[in-house]
Amino acid sequence: MIQSQNDVEALRHREKMAKRKAAQDAEVASKTIAEKGLLIVHTGSGKGKSTAAFGLLLRALGHGWSCGIVQFIKGGWETGERAALARFSDLVSWHTLGEGFTWETQDRARDVRAANSAWVKAQELMADPEIRLLVLDELNIALRYDYLPLSDVVAALRGRRPDLHIVVTGRNAKPEMIEAADLVTEMTLVKHHFKAGVKAQEGIEF
Amino acid sequence: MIQSQNDVEALRHREKMAKRKAAQDAEVASKTIAEKGLLIVHTGSGKGKSTAAFGLLLRALGHGWSCGIVQFIKGGWETGERAALARFSDLVSWHTLGEGFTWETQDRARDVRAANSAWVKAQELMADPEIRLLVLDELNIALRYDYLPLSDVVAALRGRRPDLHIVVTGRNAKPEMIEAADLVTEMTLVKHHFKAGVKAQEGIEF
Repeated sequence: MIQSQNDVEALRHREKMAKRKAAQDAEVASKTIAEKGLLIVHTGSGKGKSTAAFGLLLRALGHGWSCGIVQFIKGGWETGERAALARFSDLVSWHTLGEGFTWETQDRARDVRAANSAWVKAQELMADPEIRLLVLDELNIALRYDYLPLSDVVAALRGRRPDLHIVVTGRNAKPEMIEAADLVTEMTLVKHHFKAGVKAQEGIEF
Repeated sequence: MIQSQNDVEALRHREKMAKRKAAQDAEVASKTIAEKGLLIVHTGSGKGKSTAAFGLLLRALGHGWSCGIVQFIKGGWETGERAALARFSDLVSWHTLGEGFTWETQDRARDVRAANSAWVKAQELMADPEIRLLVLDELNIALRYDYLPLSDVVAALRGRRPDLHIVVTGRNAKPEMIEAADLVTEMTLVKHHFKAGVKAQEGIEF
């Protein structure tokens, strides 16, 4: 029986996809560790590091999890998220202890104090058995400027409860942080509307 | 007066940050286009493409915006987001028209039909003046497999209302899509716990 060109294409597509599915299934079957609190790092100079952390938070909230957020650097962008998460006040514990980007404050001693307060709060939330997901926003920046002792912070993150997922954001993640992490995504800027003279947009950037 | 080492360091930090702030301020001042609905693309093989789109959605909801989501490929991961966004049923319009990843369905004709239904729904939401942010989840995959006519889709996205932001996700974004976009972020996988034999984690991956 002679097959039409369409039939041949459909068959070829099917065979290719069947092969791909077999590979996927084999990969899933190879996983043996069922439950583990992940240390997730979002780094790189592109957009979306904190935004993807809030996306994870939204998912976790959908599972009914209690979640914590500690902001090591006050962004000024968080108006939208704050208002939205007000609908989850039963589940979300949000703490902003940073004082604005370090190039805004121009006061190293104050930044160091703020970072340390934020880290104390982070440890408190890590110890709270109710919390299942903790976002440590811009922790990488605090570490980059040596506002906090890197080895202590990484050791504490490694020693997290097995049922606690932690998301660390901020560009220039330290190699020690990447080493300790289970999942690291680098957000790379391919193209930006600022280059075309477009201002930061409400609802998108803040 | 002789300054202590600490004073010198504090001063150096302050000068460096003052310079950085001046550069930032100059950049902000250079932006002249005040409002523009952005076409945002999240691509790359790393995690966080859809997650960051949901983070943007959360922010937009915080501003009280009506938002739409069209899923071109049914992920199976969306349980958490669905449950969370139930708290925003006044603002969110969610449509899943895809039939699962193409290597799951192994039926090209059905995938093409599903992608076309999704695109019809997307155009409907683009025409709704209430909607301020629209997520076209995995549209890049539908385009990659030629389920939809690329030039028509890109032309429609370019012709969007000036007050509508659109977020397109999916790996392998077409060059034409990147060309049309205002903001493109590539999510690159640096490290993944699957490699260490850890299963997909509830609340994190689905």
